[in-house]
Amino acid sequence: MNSLWLENNKLSVRAAPQPAKPDEALIKVRKAGICSTDLELVKGYYPYTGILGHEFVGEVVSMNAALTAGLDKTSRASAQREAGGGQRLRVGDRVVGEINVACNACEQCLNGRPTHCENRTVLGIINRNGTFAEYTQLPVSNLQRVPDSVPDEMAVFTEPLAAALEIQQQIQVRPTDRVLLVGAGRLGQLIAQSLALTGCDLRVVARHAHQQELLKARRIRTISEEEIKPWRWDIVVEATGSPGGFSLARQAIRPRGTLVMKSTYQGEMSVNFSSIVVDEVNIIGSRCGPFEPALRLMENGEVDPSVLIAAQFRLEEALQAFERAAGAGVLKVLVTP
Amino acid sequence: MNSLWLENNKLSVRAAPQPAKPDEALIKVRKAGICSTDLELVKGYYPYTGILGHEFVGEVVSMNAALTAGLDKTSRASAQREAGGGQRLRVGDRVVGEINVACNACEQCLNGRPTHCENRTVLGIINRNGTFAEYTQLPVSNLQRVPDSVPDEMAVFTEPLAAALEIQQQIQVRPTDRVLLVGAGRLGQLIAQSLALTGCDLRVVARHAHQQELLKARRIRTISEEEIKPWRWDIVVEATGSPGGFSLARQAIRPRGTLVMKSTYQGEMSVNFSSIVVDEVNIIGSRCGPFEPALRLMENGEVDPSVLIAAQFRLEEALQAFERAAGAGVLKVLVTP
Repeated sequence: MNSLWLENNKLSVRAAPQPAKPDEALIKVRKAGICSTDLELVKGYYPYTGILGHEFVGEVVSMNAALTAGLDKTSRASAQREAGGGQRLRVGDRVVGEINVACNACEQCLNGRPTHCENRTVLGIINRNGTFAEYTQLPVSNLQRVPDSVPDEMAVFTEPLAAALEIQQQIQVRPTDRVLLVGAGRLGQLIAQSLALTGCDLRVVARHAHQQELLKARRIRTISEEEIKPWRWDIVVEATGSPGGFSLARQAIRPRGTLVMKSTYQGEMSVNFSSIVVDEVNIIGSRCGPFEPALRLMENGEVDPSVLIAAQFRLEEALQAFERAAGAGVLKVLVTP
Repeated sequence: MNSLWLENNKLSVRAAPQPAKPDEALIKVRKAGICSTDLELVKGYYPYTGILGHEFVGEVVSMNAALTAGLDKTSRASAQREAGGGQRLRVGDRVVGEINVACNACEQCLNGRPTHCENRTVLGIINRNGTFAEYTQLPVSNLQRVPDSVPDEMAVFTEPLAAALEIQQQIQVRPTDRVLLVGAGRLGQLIAQSLALTGCDLRVVARHAHQQELLKARRIRTISEEEIKPWRWDIVVEATGSPGGFSLARQAIRPRGTLVMKSTYQGEMSVNFSSIVVDEVNIIGSRCGPFEPALRLMENGEVDPSVLIAAQFRLEEALQAFERAAGAGVLKVLVTP
């Protein structure tokens, strides 16, 4: 039983530890995706030791039926609110999973913000072994059944597509809004596809030719940095992960516009806050989103993330998979245990 | 005819230039207030040469009646939206004035954001002589008549009180919200008074004893920095103008909370944006606000800014007035021409 292990910023394929949480579902991983966060974790963005990976589709191997039935109403309700779960799961079901495991007892959980749980563990990110392994574990309330019509190659994108949809969970995107998306990488492509569905006047800054082609194929318009008029955009989404992207986004946003920050940066960034006050700009951080609408959009064929797949590797080749994923402009690399 | 002149970061009391805009109202200044922005301008926060001052109450001496009647509907409507004007003004009326003079033609003006006009001049701040003078000038559409029951010592606070109310113009403050206000200076006191009217659970960080006493007199509760629980406040308003205030505000805000930035900082500030993304914090810059509700709240006695008055000086003593206003924790200093 192999797994991709991170320790002291070093990746290795090694034997996986025995699954050891009898109160959680045991899931056989079918496919797992490499996310920019994984690459950042390897660089030491956040101290983490254990099995990497949080984007996955898998199959329920076992779960504690008593626990499923016994979930109290509060925790079930709050899990449903975020993960959209609640349907009866059965062993053998194909599932995706909300990566934040909440305590259901802290101030954030009790106020309907389980993804911000103060005691959370996060799949493959904080104190919880992830999905680059043959098996992974999550509480049953974190799981969501995948409709039969959504193949593994799409379902594995549920988590990042949910993160893209978090934007519309947080702010209203009006059909008449001029929206600029800076960045068309792994997450940017999913944001572009979902924002385009609002009917808004969307333009995307895409650095690489193949990123531009994917957008073009969906009739999503790109724009070069030089064409971007400053002070004109109602909403700007920053999804490059580089301070240069933020700077471009800041120049583009109109007074009283909304700047959505979808990517994290290592370290601190120097910002002129006076101009943000004078222009009354709204900056909003945006992270994990709702799974249920992500699955609906893929089931209905409104969003197709599978076009992002650049390469697939076996779990034994996980180190090569990470090398490939780290290449400039490379979109999604999948790993199959 | 004296005026307080700023040039190359140096203040001087000198003869005022002859008022020279025949298409604007001529206003005899009755009282003008010193704002933190004035002190920042003297320090060189923004290059400005001319008569300082933008907080005032005055009396209309003359205006071009043809122009008043001839304002086209668009410009009148947009002026009304922001300044709440529209009533017929007469020579002799006591008035306050919206400080942003808009072009009514640019993209911001045409989209209902005249205070963000791209060609704006700003009273005593950008390309427009201000109010520390015997006379000042503004377009008639910028003026708002002061109710008889509001004395000069209150009316002179209309502009900063409007700026305080801009917070509730931008975000919803719920009666159940836990709100932390960091800073209880000139602007902070007005924010405290207006936020308290929402019924929200408000605590104010006030550094100086007399600032605390003013709040106590209105039964507004203060809190020491040590007592502030991190990650707990729905809304935090930063009104200190110091990076230390921002840092405190950032620690206090809960995940998905709203951090309102009311003060400007010189230069750039170093910020950890990753944590803002992870906590999905909403940061919103906030500047000038609506005059009409500010006047209503003073007329109804709901807000009383006159308790902030620390000292009053004659225009000839304007340099001493500025020295006094620059003292630590000093609240409002007024100047009477």
